[in-house]
Amino acid sequence: MTGSVDRMARVASERMQVRRHPERGVYSPQVIEAILDEAYICHVGFIAEGQPMVLPTVHAREGRTIYLHGAAANAMFSACAGHDICLTVTILDGLVLARSVYDHSMNYRSVVVVGRAEEVSDPEEKRRALRVLVDRVVEGRAEDAREPNENEVRATRVLRLGLDEASAKVRSGPPSDSETDLHLPVWAGVIPLRLAPDAPVPAPDLPADIPLPDYLAPERLLRRQARD
Amino acid sequence: MTGSVDRMARVASERMQVRRHPERGVYSPQVIEAILDEAYICHVGFIAEGQPMVLPTVHAREGRTIYLHGAAANAMFSACAGHDICLTVTILDGLVLARSVYDHSMNYRSVVVVGRAEEVSDPEEKRRALRVLVDRVVEGRAEDAREPNENEVRATRVLRLGLDEASAKVRSGPPSDSETDLHLPVWAGVIPLRLAPDAPVPAPDLPADIPLPDYLAPERLLRRQARD
Repeated sequence: MTGSVDRMARVASERMQVRRHPERGVYSPQVIEAILDEAYICHVGFIAEGQPMVLPTVHAREGRTIYLHGAAANAMFSACAGHDICLTVTILDGLVLARSVYDHSMNYRSVVVVGRAEEVSDPEEKRRALRVLVDRVVEGRAEDAREPNENEVRATRVLRLGLDEASAKVRSGPPSDSETDLHLPVWAGVIPLRLAPDAPVPAPDLPADIPLPDYLAPERLLRRQARD
Repeated sequence: MTGSVDRMARVASERMQVRRHPERGVYSPQVIEAILDEAYICHVGFIAEGQPMVLPTVHAREGRTIYLHGAAANAMFSACAGHDICLTVTILDGLVLARSVYDHSMNYRSVVVVGRAEEVSDPEEKRRALRVLVDRVVEGRAEDAREPNENEVRATRVLRLGLDEASAKVRSGPPSDSETDLHLPVWAGVIPLRLAPDAPVPAPDLPADIPLPDYLAPERLLRRQARD
């Protein structure tokens, strides 16, 4: 995280303007892409029979495109394909404890993308998207695991969402107490939070002679968070 | 996390049925409440001028009610108050690496709540909600930090959402490869993930004689994740 707020004015559309705490708005494609790439999951918002719905799922970025996937019978995908959706990722970086209840906050980096989700029907693009979806979660995995066969590709739906309308919002740093509260005898500061990998747990049926691959070494997995 | 899937049939409504992987659906209020309480943030889905929108925010549960709060001028709150919204929390517990790309998955616990968001106008309920919102994030904090004054209460909007229509979805355990893939020489297993607190960072303007309170001790913060 950069800590400072980048105000590049590359705002694709009015509705992507960060209105609440506009000083936290970030419109730099690099910042937006880095947040999308670091987050393991996103939350997708869509309308199902008039009701807004939000479900978590895995996303993967390739250039200016985000891919989502799901089973062919997936109800969320039917509600999303061909419709305007909202895709949001949030990385929580810390709890911000101010002297006053009112000034409590959190440090975070979030991205909101809106746009029309389009179904990917071309088998080659589908295959590529499925590789990217696995490799964005664990770099190197797509090369190692068995690739999808034709039935599996058919049983999977892939959606494409462009990054044309996207914005990020970033809060970092210490609490901002009002001056009249600074004298209070209350601890103030930040509790940093980090999504940390624990030691890999082999599947119970994994033969003992199959070692942990290099790309799953703890220091490689941690690098994801250290990327910026 | 229990690991097994609880199938108590306390489903308040048809639309809260988990349709995709129904064996992962959990309708026990205890499980739903524990997931809501462990998660630091939620994602709220609402409709703004016909467009589904998803924004992250802090939530807090008190009994069968969830509270949300925001600044009085908050556009999200205006779009939510008096309308049907969707509130989703997701705790990511691990990356599930199967022999085949197709069977890759994640271990997670998520909750989806839908219902009408109602604005809390009673100042006493607002005050209580603001206490709960701080205390659910860090237990003991509301007692220590300066409580909101009348202007701050007025400057804050609070929304109430009932837990009548809610469901959880849980995946845990090792990968489920198809039998025909078990012979493949590919490492399979789980990379556990955990949102871990790092050492507290005092505010730069914190007097040196104010110690870290007991409720912020690392073992207390870790207990949140160990709750179940």
